[in-house]
Amino acid sequence: MAANVEDVIMLLGDSLTQGGWQAHGFAQQLAYVYNRKLDVLNRGMSGYNTEWIQPVFEQCFATQHEQKHVPAVRLLTIWLGANDAALPGTSQHVPLPTFAANLSKLIHMVTSPSSTHYSPVTRIMLFTPPPVNTYQWRVRQQSKTPPKGLDRDFEVTKSYAQAVVDVGAKEGVPVLDLWTVLWEACGKEEQNLSKFLTDGLHLNEAGYTILFQELMAAIENHYPELHPDRLKPVFAFHDQIDYQNPRSTLVKRNIFE
Amino acid sequence: MAANVEDVIMLLGDSLTQGGWQAHGFAQQLAYVYNRKLDVLNRGMSGYNTEWIQPVFEQCFATQHEQKHVPAVRLLTIWLGANDAALPGTSQHVPLPTFAANLSKLIHMVTSPSSTHYSPVTRIMLFTPPPVNTYQWRVRQQSKTPPKGLDRDFEVTKSYAQAVVDVGAKEGVPVLDLWTVLWEACGKEEQNLSKFLTDGLHLNEAGYTILFQELMAAIENHYPELHPDRLKPVFAFHDQIDYQNPRSTLVKRNIFE
Repeated sequence: MAANVEDVIMLLGDSLTQGGWQAHGFAQQLAYVYNRKLDVLNRGMSGYNTEWIQPVFEQCFATQHEQKHVPAVRLLTIWLGANDAALPGTSQHVPLPTFAANLSKLIHMVTSPSSTHYSPVTRIMLFTPPPVNTYQWRVRQQSKTPPKGLDRDFEVTKSYAQAVVDVGAKEGVPVLDLWTVLWEACGKEEQNLSKFLTDGLHLNEAGYTILFQELMAAIENHYPELHPDRLKPVFAFHDQIDYQNPRSTLVKRNIFE
Repeated sequence: MAANVEDVIMLLGDSLTQGGWQAHGFAQQLAYVYNRKLDVLNRGMSGYNTEWIQPVFEQCFATQHEQKHVPAVRLLTIWLGANDAALPGTSQHVPLPTFAANLSKLIHMVTSPSSTHYSPVTRIMLFTPPPVNTYQWRVRQQSKTPPKGLDRDFEVTKSYAQAVVDVGAKEGVPVLDLWTVLWEACGKEEQNLSKFLTDGLHLNEAGYTILFQELMAAIENHYPELHPDRLKPVFAFHDQIDYQNPRSTLVKRNIFE
């Protein structure tokens, strides 16, 4: 059984988060730079929206009663909306006001002192969903057996991204506005989004790399104490070991000191 | 704080394990295929030998008393020897009999009912260190400031790899003999090992990919119940959600059932 030598970064979301374990995905890149400092737990659930993620999050995030036994979540990223923005009539669709309220609920679960999951040491970052490239997504949908209709819309997803920005402002939680970053990076031409998306909805390596770079900048900006360059590895570098009395130098350390 | 929704795979070792979080490293590839089933915890410590890893492992692996609160380690990989095999006179060198005894100690910490860290649910796999390409490693050592002498030897590392195989046989623990796999894959020509090694000691993408494929085969062979194809994700796939009563289908599940 794993003892709690490292605190964690938890990534909550949908398939965009789940895919973060691909080579060059943002989970892989985080795990690499936080190696020996913080573990990365991927809680991305493909296809999920902000309704379905609520009971999942209640089970993934420890209650106050459990917290003394389990690793602290130092950073929580919440990245949802790509499925909530599915068009009305689809199973994944969540109306915009409900989407915004659901994001607030996830945040309050962690930040509200009256919450059973209250965790004052957890820093939260919201991500906006990427812009949809409906040119690509239409092709992907038509390639299914049987072919599916177009269930995303550029402007609709944009409005869900804006809702994330608004929730962040209302709740005082930093937002990584990936929607705007990618939109500007593609010269505001929907078809050019294929530079960053595999199928019009999901990120490719280039998209994940931009997300990772933006996340590192956002951590430096909002939570500089959590930037990996400022953290010590839990266990000493091997050239810091006292070779005469190694055990004295091989005690778990506080990464913040 | 992270509640224990997923059990874990723990990777114990030196820089070869630490580097597993690179894109295409074996930790990344494991995290990808075990996504939503088992978390991957990298406990690779660059430069460490089997002496220094002992106190680290005592702290990373929960005691029996702690085990009821923390995630179960379902698979533990132990991959050491690359530094123990540094030549006598270096700080990293561990004599061959001590190396073998230290590996047995790590195993017994988990498997011995009298151990404070006894964990009968944990399956163990030993890896042998890769063969050293001294042609590459000499160049790497000479590139240091000030230049360093050659501190590894092909035949010495081979003897440490053999010791891992012997420990596995003695302790009844499966061994992934990466030394032999890579040696055969390079046509038994030391210089050809550069296909799989970055600097003569560490794996490149091709080397990690072979390791990952061998590990998947070894899991299928020795611990088929742990193969990802036989595990259920902890939370249901989104098309298994009951859209009328989602909470009933969003309860954490046993991955083995």
